[in-house]
Amino acid sequence: MGPIESLPRNEAGIAAVLPLIRQRLGDRLATGEAVRAQHAQTTTWLVQQPPDAVAWPETTAEVAGIVALCAEHRVPVIAYGTGTSLEGHVNAPAGGICLDLMRMDRIREVHAEDLDCTVEPGVTRSRLNAHLRDRGLFFPIDPGADASLGGMAATRASGTNAVRYGTMRENVLGLEVVLADGRVIRTGGRARKSAAGYDLTRLFVGSEGTLGVITGITLRLHGIPEATAVATCAFPSLGAACDTVIATIQSGIPVARIELLDPVAIGAVNAHARLGLAVMPTLFLEFHGSPSGVAEQAAAFGEIAADLGGTDFAHASRPEDRGRLWKARHEFYWAGLALRPGARGLSTDVCVPISRLADCVTIAAERAAAEGFLAPIVGHVGDGNFHVMLLVDPADAAEAARAGAYVDWLADLAIGMGGTCTGEHGIGQGKRGYLAAEAGEAVSVMAALKAALDPLGILNPGKVLPP
Amino acid sequence: MGPIESLPRNEAGIAAVLPLIRQRLGDRLATGEAVRAQHAQTTTWLVQQPPDAVAWPETTAEVAGIVALCAEHRVPVIAYGTGTSLEGHVNAPAGGICLDLMRMDRIREVHAEDLDCTVEPGVTRSRLNAHLRDRGLFFPIDPGADASLGGMAATRASGTNAVRYGTMRENVLGLEVVLADGRVIRTGGRARKSAAGYDLTRLFVGSEGTLGVITGITLRLHGIPEATAVATCAFPSLGAACDTVIATIQSGIPVARIELLDPVAIGAVNAHARLGLAVMPTLFLEFHGSPSGVAEQAAAFGEIAADLGGTDFAHASRPEDRGRLWKARHEFYWAGLALRPGARGLSTDVCVPISRLADCVTIAAERAAAEGFLAPIVGHVGDGNFHVMLLVDPADAAEAARAGAYVDWLADLAIGMGGTCTGEHGIGQGKRGYLAAEAGEAVSVMAALKAALDPLGILNPGKVLPP
Repeated sequence: MGPIESLPRNEAGIAAVLPLIRQRLGDRLATGEAVRAQHAQTTTWLVQQPPDAVAWPETTAEVAGIVALCAEHRVPVIAYGTGTSLEGHVNAPAGGICLDLMRMDRIREVHAEDLDCTVEPGVTRSRLNAHLRDRGLFFPIDPGADASLGGMAATRASGTNAVRYGTMRENVLGLEVVLADGRVIRTGGRARKSAAGYDLTRLFVGSEGTLGVITGITLRLHGIPEATAVATCAFPSLGAACDTVIATIQSGIPVARIELLDPVAIGAVNAHARLGLAVMPTLFLEFHGSPSGVAEQAAAFGEIAADLGGTDFAHASRPEDRGRLWKARHEFYWAGLALRPGARGLSTDVCVPISRLADCVTIAAERAAAEGFLAPIVGHVGDGNFHVMLLVDPADAAEAARAGAYVDWLADLAIGMGGTCTGEHGIGQGKRGYLAAEAGEAVSVMAALKAALDPLGILNPGKVLPP
Repeated sequence: MGPIESLPRNEAGIAAVLPLIRQRLGDRLATGEAVRAQHAQTTTWLVQQPPDAVAWPETTAEVAGIVALCAEHRVPVIAYGTGTSLEGHVNAPAGGICLDLMRMDRIREVHAEDLDCTVEPGVTRSRLNAHLRDRGLFFPIDPGADASLGGMAATRASGTNAVRYGTMRENVLGLEVVLADGRVIRTGGRARKSAAGYDLTRLFVGSEGTLGVITGITLRLHGIPEATAVATCAFPSLGAACDTVIATIQSGIPVARIELLDPVAIGAVNAHARLGLAVMPTLFLEFHGSPSGVAEQAAAFGEIAADLGGTDFAHASRPEDRGRLWKARHEFYWAGLALRPGARGLSTDVCVPISRLADCVTIAAERAAAEGFLAPIVGHVGDGNFHVMLLVDPADAAEAARAGAYVDWLADLAIGMGGTCTGEHGIGQGKRGYLAAEAGEAVSVMAALKAALDPLGILNPGKVLPP
């Protein structure tokens, strides 16, 4: 993790463009300090770099108009959703216009019969699911935050259900995108598959606002499973828990969720949600299917877990118990922070081939402990993805530096195991330094794509590509 | 379908590059007429445009060296696998060097514990599956031909299992690619998911050799299911069969395969494989899971089918019967051709949102019949994808013109229903004319990507992008 630097500002362009945008949006353009600071909120350790103004467009045409003006005046445009990204994605190192897309919050279409819908970027995942529930449908991708679907597409988000349902990569069928010159395109479509031309949808998914601004998203939906079962299981060691995950995945049990919490994380959720779980490495699981299918999956998992030393195998069949357990898991970020009042949470994110998971988690936990960090570990371990949340005193520069060195080390470790420096949080500003180590010469191709689609470099500058 | 034109040839460059490649490859470079014609084989109606020479590189370094030479001399490079593409992907409208990659046929690594493997582009899907069988693993993507995995990645192939396992889009984890200037990059990796930078893997998957030459493919593997059941079910109408598919998908039954054959197609496979099926619209299904899970899926499907008029519901539980049924399905192309000896098969391919499937198939069949075409229809209908195979007398120019008009009309129909002009065959030369209608302004973004990654235009010229 290198220092986050400011980039050169185009003061004349910024001064020129603000009144032009104000003409169009009126009081939906704000330049007050508090609003600007709020839109540089990065939820984590990164220095805040506020934009010069925040705009609230309400239509694709308004977004296109603002982007065209910004292109004409060479002014940065930073797309913004709920501000819950973790790697500085919404910072404005060269200033510019923050496009707060949360007023573009219409659910444009739901095609229940085709299991798809089209939404605007400001719809959050929980609002979409509330809207879908009566139709027996749900959208499975659930990052920790109640993020906007535009932000989730932009960062290629995933979460606890990805092991079964995939990530945003697999669940976005098509996009509406405003290009860097203000033109609007549509990518993909509503057909389940297509071999028609280059896969622009997947190019924009995960591009973190650096190649275009997403103004519409067509999502793949899933039927709410007939039956759902939840289980927890404790293990004598992180290694035993991870080995159980590996064996479960290899045996083809279609788990919907398989989440690891280390003893520190269990302590945090016990305190936060009064769960009373044994303070041991623990897996939280969910099974989806028919009633008999769910029972069969749970039994098959139980056998594997017992063979590997699992204890305290507990089912939660009542919806309220299931909800309480998963609520605790989803609120882990806040539970973790509460372990050390006043601390910042530096939540890092790696993903490795599943055969390396036990090693990677164990080594990561040992080193965090050896360095004296209070650092709960949670993971979407069915994918080989886990997070170490370092709780750092923001006033202690030496501790922050050691935390940064730990994050560097963990990224290297994961890359060396054939994994990635980020399974789901994205590169943003914080992980740009690792991209070359992971992607090598392919970074030059990414740079060529950026130059082709955003030749003026106005879209979310200072993100993704190495400095 | 417009005429397939030749493009300007760089005679001097071609003359200069041939001896240089011969120095490197010796007799692994051929310029004989028969070999060149064989490598312009397009399996379908398109005019053959042979390359000037065929090269058989054996390593990534050799591919990189040839591409660098071709770049220096501005000579086209056309990657070639089994030559089973259907839209003229391997034609050489500007001449140039055909890179036959079938001698790059090593299975580089199998990580059974991670459910992945890395292969060279010349490994065919059946050879990979023979190699994996003893480890309890399989690779599910199965286009009609025993295609090469490099070609399957390049065309974003799918097949009968895509409804459950996805297409090449979902099953390629990473690639090794030779760029247009001869540099070699690696994209993606072995982690199940990643949010690290732009999704180059998905950009090259389906780019049909126009953005780079694929020399290595890391694939996602799956465990051979514990139990497999096969069923067939006949219906009184295409509409009833499609409605059954729609209801099956909507109900969340995780069918592994659900294939439609219209009565003409049933007649063809009956004759070819002596199946003795009732000559009615028929679904072929396969279920994967545990023994009880498979039985439950088959029973749930049976109820839906019976409600919608399905009859002749037959299980095939013996492996040899299952194999015979699917072999018949996979050999449909040859069975269809045999319906009209001497005819060419013009096999077209559209995909629509599943709610439109019954309409689209019914209208397509009615129009083919009204126009007097002998035209069996088969489809991977769980994805909304189907093929109409027009059997056309190659000596009858008027009939060929009417067939071309039918293909144009069907592409328009599918696009108008929110679908795509190609679910799995790709654009190649044959469907370039439809891409603008389907993708609109997004085509300009595809052109910008092509210009960024292949500025000299040497990679498979005259493909994908509209003329």
